[in-house]
Amino acid sequence: MAHDIQIVTEAELRQVVHLDLTTVDVIEAAFAALARGGVVMPPIMSMDLHEVNGEVDVKTAYIPGFDGFAIKVSPGFFDNPKIGLPSLNGLMILFSARTGLVESLFLDNGYLTDIRTAAAGAVAARHLAPMMVETAGVIGTGVQARLQMQAAHLVRPFARVLVHGRDMDKARACASDLASLLGIDAEAIADPAALVAQSQLVVTTTPSREPLIRADWLHPGLHITAMGSDQTGKNEIEPAALMAADAYVCDRVSQCEVSGELEAALAAGVWTKGTPPELGEIIAGQKPGRTSSDDITICDLTGTGVQDTAIATHVRARFAKAGTIIRA
Amino acid sequence: MAHDIQIVTEAELRQVVHLDLTTVDVIEAAFAALARGGVVMPPIMSMDLHEVNGEVDVKTAYIPGFDGFAIKVSPGFFDNPKIGLPSLNGLMILFSARTGLVESLFLDNGYLTDIRTAAAGAVAARHLAPMMVETAGVIGTGVQARLQMQAAHLVRPFARVLVHGRDMDKARACASDLASLLGIDAEAIADPAALVAQSQLVVTTTPSREPLIRADWLHPGLHITAMGSDQTGKNEIEPAALMAADAYVCDRVSQCEVSGELEAALAAGVWTKGTPPELGEIIAGQKPGRTSSDDITICDLTGTGVQDTAIATHVRARFAKAGTIIRA
Repeated sequence: MAHDIQIVTEAELRQVVHLDLTTVDVIEAAFAALARGGVVMPPIMSMDLHEVNGEVDVKTAYIPGFDGFAIKVSPGFFDNPKIGLPSLNGLMILFSARTGLVESLFLDNGYLTDIRTAAAGAVAARHLAPMMVETAGVIGTGVQARLQMQAAHLVRPFARVLVHGRDMDKARACASDLASLLGIDAEAIADPAALVAQSQLVVTTTPSREPLIRADWLHPGLHITAMGSDQTGKNEIEPAALMAADAYVCDRVSQCEVSGELEAALAAGVWTKGTPPELGEIIAGQKPGRTSSDDITICDLTGTGVQDTAIATHVRARFAKAGTIIRA
Repeated sequence: MAHDIQIVTEAELRQVVHLDLTTVDVIEAAFAALARGGVVMPPIMSMDLHEVNGEVDVKTAYIPGFDGFAIKVSPGFFDNPKIGLPSLNGLMILFSARTGLVESLFLDNGYLTDIRTAAAGAVAARHLAPMMVETAGVIGTGVQARLQMQAAHLVRPFARVLVHGRDMDKARACASDLASLLGIDAEAIADPAALVAQSQLVVTTTPSREPLIRADWLHPGLHITAMGSDQTGKNEIEPAALMAADAYVCDRVSQCEVSGELEAALAAGVWTKGTPPELGEIIAGQKPGRTSSDDITICDLTGTGVQDTAIATHVRARFAKAGTIIRA
């Protein structure tokens, strides 16, 4: 029996979906639902395609009470720039949670992922960063470096931002963009230790496989969100820092154990505090997060299927008439 | 950078893709590629959604030398018939194997799965059934019962077909349909033992959780394809039959161990012949299949991602202009 399927392109999505407090609230609700239980979120399906220098990840999550569930496919083909194409692409498919019928196809080339990933950074900052953030710092100079600072600024309207990257030209370009986007002082900085020392909120957005932030750089009142690690072997924060923090918080423990900062800490035998709290448990008040302005907090974001389901159902609910309808 | 994406509906697919020797050859090539190695086929991603009496499976496979790879999503929501909707739905997404870009969306509601599943039955019959099949039997009365007999008839043009099901009315309806479709004698039969005794080729197409075919029904020159089991706990063939057969062949050993006939035989401790051959290895001549007309052979089909990639790349290559083009 044929039914209507909504098809929305990246260009159409960019017109209607933005990184704002609405999307932050949508992603916050997804993490809270994860803590309430009943979520069905299978392990990420992953293909390494060495032959073509590519990888493909598939994520999904069913959240009780949500009208739909999303399945997201994220291909990364790293030779694409040689032929003028972006490395990252992909789409989200939204299914009815009642009938399993396809409702929407979001041909977003990763745009919704960018938004839901940045929004999770805002959720982490809202619940874990100190209330007063004067200076924020970002390590990394790509799309997420910009989006994470925009997201954090929504919930902690800092007056100054510092940017560190291996390539100072890229760091300066990122700082310049952030100065325009946020209307605040922005500065590229060559020394990551100095960036951490001057910041109350730091976000790491790199694909690094060696720690970029040392444990002895931590200082009272610091919050770090590490969102670059999303694959086995990636590591942005020195394992000892996780133990030194007053609160180390995972988006999803089972994912952080295999592809987040916790992986390296477990492998090094450094982590001995048992099961860390999850961001959703902090939001739901089930576990404590930051308990004083002097606490040191770290949030480890690997990216979860609930974020995809949350952003996709939000887009469907708010913009049901966007795009093209195909009867199939 | 926007690119063109082909979107093809079930109705459009039904006009151009049929169960014929071309599709059988396409699926045979996929199994042969699996045997050649280099295929990347991650475990099936699966969600059990008890709350809504649903399940969702995601399959994929990258095959070296194929232009694309498919990701298939198959939701089954078993309360749908109560509101007039089919239980099974879903779609296939075809990605470029070179760039990871989305090339085609096949909104097939499971039609391509039906075809590639039946085609695998024909491949099994072509390589394992005795050359002369006078009578074929099918246990089960659904869509696949009809398609499996049509598929087998393409490669073994038998003169008579027997149909057994728990519901004799459904068995008679299926027999009547097969008589018209194939232009041969067709008969519903109440006794499955009699069906097996009179047939040289038997296909089981049920969701049974108890064996339907007993080991002591096997007779020289019999081939059985068991294609109903695709989930842990399903079982159509008595475990002792797998040992008694001259050749027991898996579509993919790693899948049959957890969701095929092999699962029950391993659980019962009955299977002691080591790693069974795979259908692709028989096709490629790497392992022996049937060695005489008196051999007893069993093929266990759980459904593989290579079949999805093969049918999807075939449809793309042959019918690139079908459907609607959306620039995204």
